[in-house]
Amino acid sequence: MVSPLILINLKTYQEGIGGSAHRIATAAENVAKESGVTIGVAPSFMDLRPLSTHFSIPVYAQHIDGITPGAHTGYILPEAVKLAGAHGTLINHSERRLTLADIEAAVAAAKRLQLETVVCTNNVATSAAAAALAPDYVAIEPPELIGSGVSVSKADPEIIRRSVEAVRGVRDDVQVLTGAGIQSGDCVKIALDLGTQGVLLASSVVKADDPAAVLRELVSLL
Amino acid sequence: MVSPLILINLKTYQEGIGGSAHRIATAAENVAKESGVTIGVAPSFMDLRPLSTHFSIPVYAQHIDGITPGAHTGYILPEAVKLAGAHGTLINHSERRLTLADIEAAVAAAKRLQLETVVCTNNVATSAAAAALAPDYVAIEPPELIGSGVSVSKADPEIIRRSVEAVRGVRDDVQVLTGAGIQSGDCVKIALDLGTQGVLLASSVVKADDPAAVLRELVSLL
Amino acid sequence: MVSPLILINLKTYQEGIGGSAHRIATAAENVAKESGVTIGVAPSFMDLRPLSTHFSIPVYAQHIDGITPGAHTGYILPEAVKLAGAHGTLINHSERRLTLADIEAAVAAAKRLQLETVVCTNNVATSAAAAALAPDYVAIEPPELIGSGVSVSKADPEIIRRSVEAVRGVRDDVQVLTGAGIQSGDCVKIALDLGTQGVLLASSVVKADDPAAVLRELVSLL
Amino acid sequence: MVSPLILINLKTYQEGIGGSAHRIATAAENVAKESGVTIGVAPSFMDLRPLSTHFSIPVYAQHIDGITPGAHTGYILPEAVKLAGAHGTLINHSERRLTLADIEAAVAAAKRLQLETVVCTNNVATSAAAAALAPDYVAIEPPELIGSGVSVSKADPEIIRRSVEAVRGVRDDVQVLTGAGIQSGDCVKIALDLGTQGVLLASSVVKADDPAAVLRELVSLL
Repeated sequence: MVSPLILINLKTYQEGIGGSAHRIATAAENVAKESGVTIGVAPSFMDLRPLSTHFSIPVYAQHIDGITPGAHTGYILPEAVKLAGAHGTLINHSERRLTLADIEAAVAAAKRLQLETVVCTNNVATSAAAAALAPDYVAIEPPELIGSGVSVSKADPEIIRRSVEAVRGVRDDVQVLTGAGIQSGDCVKIALDLGTQGVLLASSVVKADDPAAVLRELVSLL
Repeated sequence: MVSPLILINLKTYQEGIGGSAHRIATAAENVAKESGVTIGVAPSFMDLRPLSTHFSIPVYAQHIDGITPGAHTGYILPEAVKLAGAHGTLINHSERRLTLADIEAAVAAAKRLQLETVVCTNNVATSAAAAALAPDYVAIEPPELIGSGVSVSKADPEIIRRSVEAVRGVRDDVQVLTGAGIQSGDCVKIALDLGTQGVLLASSVVKADDPAAVLRELVSLL
Repeated sequence: MVSPLILINLKTYQEGIGGSAHRIATAAENVAKESGVTIGVAPSFMDLRPLSTHFSIPVYAQHIDGITPGAHTGYILPEAVKLAGAHGTLINHSERRLTLADIEAAVAAAKRLQLETVVCTNNVATSAAAAALAPDYVAIEPPELIGSGVSVSKADPEIIRRSVEAVRGVRDDVQVLTGAGIQSGDCVKIALDLGTQGVLLASSVVKADDPAAVLRELVSLL
Repeated sequence: MVSPLILINLKTYQEGIGGSAHRIATAAENVAKESGVTIGVAPSFMDLRPLSTHFSIPVYAQHIDGITPGAHTGYILPEAVKLAGAHGTLINHSERRLTLADIEAAVAAAKRLQLETVVCTNNVATSAAAAALAPDYVAIEPPELIGSGVSVSKADPEIIRRSVEAVRGVRDDVQVLTGAGIQSGDCVKIALDLGTQGVLLASSVVKADDPAAVLRELVSLL
């Protein structure tokens, strides 16, 4: 049996860059070792290489562009992300939406480079659409739960259940992550019970006084 | 049996606005009556109301935004497009790409308003993804054929055939249009033989000296 | 002496499309005639032609793209806006931001077509930058006032005064509009006293039970 | 007297990432030492930290977003770029256009962090507009020269001369770079004679078999 994935998005929080990114990664690595659960981090682009060099946990880019090497000043070249040691990448996060054509090109580029892909979506229909692009994961982020402090289990577990079904209906080799509404170990357990293979979370870990303690609680029921 | 759809995109060509749009619509209406084939036009937003008022053919917007009434200065409100008499709308044309979330929102808004939806896509994978959003049509525009003057039949008919299959694999109630590479009546016939329900074309009609003659030739083998 | 400009942005409000747009335009035309003040409306693209045909007041597009005739499906061609009878256009509204290169191209296209240009900006520095493009008007919309219900005079009149100075410092033939924070005739008077040549407003007129009464009050101190 | 600036944009060329970025930076550092001319490099985000750590030349980001720390997944936080050791940043490169509001916010953020700013523009009017934002440099890239292989001196030196004048007319403390059309040491000399303080170039160095030889020739007439 494969471990569930706890993926921590460091966003562009002040608490998630430079030395602070190392602090989160240290907590993630420690709790991953203790618990046997896979815990990944998605830092800023500048922190990809240092984190992938110094830590044994999987490191993800927060975004890649669906481009090939060439004249694309200021864009995120998948080859450069791979070279920096990334294990995978988020694509189409709710804060960094892409066109359908660009999502497809980004997933295709990542596959060529053996980067794991996590495509974010906002509802059942877009989850099914994303599944058709055959990423490794679809992370469903219901807009009403993003940054709300409301638990996915109490809000509307049906959207997660129906997203899993919709994804399975299109391709049964695509896994699903619960991308919002994760407040505690209870939420993580419910997310898995609903048929998802893990969770994507951010501020609850990144802004914690003791990230390791928060992570320990999150994996406590697995 | 339902007629195939010949959909003429007037783009922002000088030959496709104002009085010139009426000229194209007149040709389309005449050939539609003669042949019994459904011929639609997609003019500029300013020409939606005049064309839908003066002609009996279906008129399409070239784009809508997936918004609801409110503070969205400069955007295309689906309700306003409907009110102007549109029969349907293009969504995500290769020249006006949208995020996946916006495509979904635009399709959903159009459905609420009973506007027919034609979602444009660029390859097999994005066609399958678009199908998951349940539009009326997916129009596949292989990038290598757009504006190339190359016929779809001679270039790569396989991409059309595989797109039809991919769309059917996701939803069997979504129809497919061949969105590029249509040069002649032969091309239209091949497009239908490949399993699509019509064609989307532009400059070959809009820039023609005699649009009615071009349209007559295009429907001659149907 | 030239009349100040009261410019009503109908946005994509339900109360601002189709027959409701005619209702606002009727009020604007009546109050303009009674008061001698210039009152313009910026409706949806589909309503440009009907309003410019039926009313004597100046009608503005809410946006144009800095393109020339060609293959730009779903974009707003300045030539098509002109052909629909527009007197001018908003450019770079806070809800429809453009790149600097596109603002410049849109202003240049509008000038070629003798469309009046109103470039919206968000602070002193961007107002000076917009002035360098030599539009007819710069409309300053301080973000803290947009849709706030707070009057510009009570909030921070200094940002308006400094924007006027900054615009004058770059080009003295560019006029300035106060683009947010207009609640009453008092606000309009203060806006003019601060050195601007008019106001840009939206919901207070568009969503009013009696738009003519609101407009009468707005121009009452001019 | 201050040295002119030779700024090498590594773009997303295969020859400009990872170990290859070190190869270009080595050449730049050597020629800078030999000649006394300031030579900077703008690598991919992942290479900012390694290059600024290992080399004494100034390292620039290719882009920053005008954001503050917070929830902006996949964006480029100025604070994170600074922390990675960057000396400055390109803003609004022709391949990565920004809205006017975002250019202003990016310049303001960079100033707060003491990052040098190079705002790219495409013509005389946008150069004047960019100058109003008070960046350190405006880099003018005439579209007809970008990647053309045509020398700025032979094509249209007037656009450079008039851009310098337009920038000076708005603010005399903003310097100008010639951002395209640099093929040789002759071009660099002409660029300086036209009143610019340096050049921005890319493929001629990045794709060279011997980048140091190309750089030596470029600075040979200074």
